Amino acid sequence: MHILIIGAAGMVGRKLTNRLVQDGRIGNKTIEQLSLVDVFEPERPKGFAGKVMTRAADLAEAGVAQALIAGRPDMIVHLAAIVSGEAEADFDRGYRINLDATRALFEAVRQEGLKSPYVPRLVFTSSIAVFGAPFPDKIGDEFFTTPLTSYGTQKAIGELLLSDYSRRGFFDGIGIRLPTICIRPGKPNKAASGFFSNILREPLAGQEAVLPVEDTVRHWHASPRAAVGFLVHAMTMDLSVLGARRNLTLPGLSATVAEQIEALRRVAGEKAVRRIRREPDPTIIRIVSGWPQNFDARRATALGFKAEQSFDEIIRIHIEEELGGKVA
Amino acid sequence: MHILIIGAAGMVGRKLTNRLVQDGRIGNKTIEQLSLVDVFEPERPKGFAGKVMTRAADLAEAGVAQALIAGRPDMIVHLAAIVSGEAEADFDRGYRINLDATRALFEAVRQEGLKSPYVPRLVFTSSIAVFGAPFPDKIGDEFFTTPLTSYGTQKAIGELLLSDYSRRGFFDGIGIRLPTICIRPGKPNKAASGFFSNILREPLAGQEAVLPVEDTVRHWHASPRAAVGFLVHAMTMDLSVLGARRNLTLPGLSATVAEQIEALRRVAGEKAVRRIRREPDPTIIRIVSGWPQNFDARRATALGFKAEQSFDEIIRIHIEEELGGKVA
Repeated sequence: MHILIIGAAGMVGRKLTNRLVQDGRIGNKTIEQLSLVDVFEPERPKGFAGKVMTRAADLAEAGVAQALIAGRPDMIVHLAAIVSGEAEADFDRGYRINLDATRALFEAVRQEGLKSPYVPRLVFTSSIAVFGAPFPDKIGDEFFTTPLTSYGTQKAIGELLLSDYSRRGFFDGIGIRLPTICIRPGKPNKAASGFFSNILREPLAGQEAVLPVEDTVRHWHASPRAAVGFLVHAMTMDLSVLGARRNLTLPGLSATVAEQIEALRRVAGEKAVRRIRREPDPTIIRIVSGWPQNFDARRATALGFKAEQSFDEIIRIHIEEELGGKVA
Repeated sequence: MHILIIGAAGMVGRKLTNRLVQDGRIGNKTIEQLSLVDVFEPERPKGFAGKVMTRAADLAEAGVAQALIAGRPDMIVHLAAIVSGEAEADFDRGYRINLDATRALFEAVRQEGLKSPYVPRLVFTSSIAVFGAPFPDKIGDEFFTTPLTSYGTQKAIGELLLSDYSRRGFFDGIGIRLPTICIRPGKPNKAASGFFSNILREPLAGQEAVLPVEDTVRHWHASPRAAVGFLVHAMTMDLSVLGARRNLTLPGLSATVAEQIEALRRVAGEKAVRRIRREPDPTIIRIVSGWPQNFDARRATALGFKAEQSFDEIIRIHIEEELGGKVA
């Protein structure tokens, strides 16, 4: 198998690459080639027996998608996007990267297939940002997509294109709406959702963290490990069962901030919890109030996608993957 | 008011133009200018006191949208589209006209507003083709959009863009999902939905018509007059009540073919009904089986949109508007 990962230098892209290198195969097939692309050149994975291509390229630029697809990868994983905050701040850039580049990729696959038969699998990461408040208590699989951000709009359009290109037989696509990834490794960032990770990651590393919202705020989470599991499942599952409805809300864990903190207390003790400082931020409170809190992700669950069942588990995965098993 | 109608030469565009010319005003404001655009130059309306501009132009061509918007119309009615069958047959042309041209229009409005404040009202005609089977018995206002045609995909994308551009304040938009228009005047055409009109229009004019499906087929209808009423309401209603959810399924009449035929019998007698020839067509039967049958269009109804309550009424409107009050 030849697998092309676009957005390979991001957090999820790197973890997916590591998993594929470690497995050496996808499903029951050997991975012969990995093509890793991002706006910054992705790191070359170590210890991979097959061929590796790494490239710095902007998918939105003319000719880039065609060049990547000319190698006819068997599977394409499209992770590249600019985040919600940036897509909101820079309207043109958001549409260019999140919509035009995605469409250019889809169109490059179609054009390649017009030369001679070519129908790769294409996995597209969408987002729960395709949904906009007001919501039912649990958002069902047939709830409509009325995004309240340009990012969510661009992802919802990507989903529609994915379905149409798949229905037409240009590729075999699946769109997966990832929960908010928690605990995100790295430094605290300015994303409005950053605190969900910060209030766990920083205390676990002996650092203070700021909680800008009430304890009662509820949100939808999955670990980075679950995210990689989702992608591998999307890359290997039988897609014929999807029919025409190619986009899925993935399972996650619905939890309040209070529940996150209780899990932190159980796993890392009171001293970790004491490192959380409450500093309400009206802007973040307002933004977060429009976000989904809970889903009934029945369809994806029935199709074999799996997320964590508790925040204790999510915290333990972080300690294992990022902290070498040790809490500060 | 300066009103720009794109797609003004089509059936709905002509009827809307006639209504506006007849009223001379929209809401409580005088119409000073009508700009009428289509791929074929629209007819100049007679008896209009204000200024009229007619132009043949392809909105998908570079610079066309900017040129139309440079005149800063107060209201823009975007009716232009290529139909479902053609968008399915010609993938590139469908995306070019139904998606790229729509986006070019929206973007031209935004760019004009970047020069100096400009926030026109924009009415976009969408379609029940944004929905795809399987359906609940009645499709509610929060049912998801999983189109089964490229046309439906393009309309659903137009809706998402309309919402995002409106949310950003680039224009004040409303998207209206028209029911199937019945009775469509003119000649029988090859559209898969054509028979819904043919089986009434042709017998009323003394001609034979072919019914290619079972009597039990149920579908969602509104008259051309209702369509014009929908547009005028969308042009004049208070849009602030829409909040972020800018796209509406409009009310219609859910009726079976048998109910259509019964209405024809009541209005035009048994001799008209005898002009319908049954000739099952497996292709049309298959296509129609994937179409919506019934909606609960609660939100648009509460917002004042009105459709016909019976097929007798729909038939009488046709006799009045197209046949000078007389049945063959």
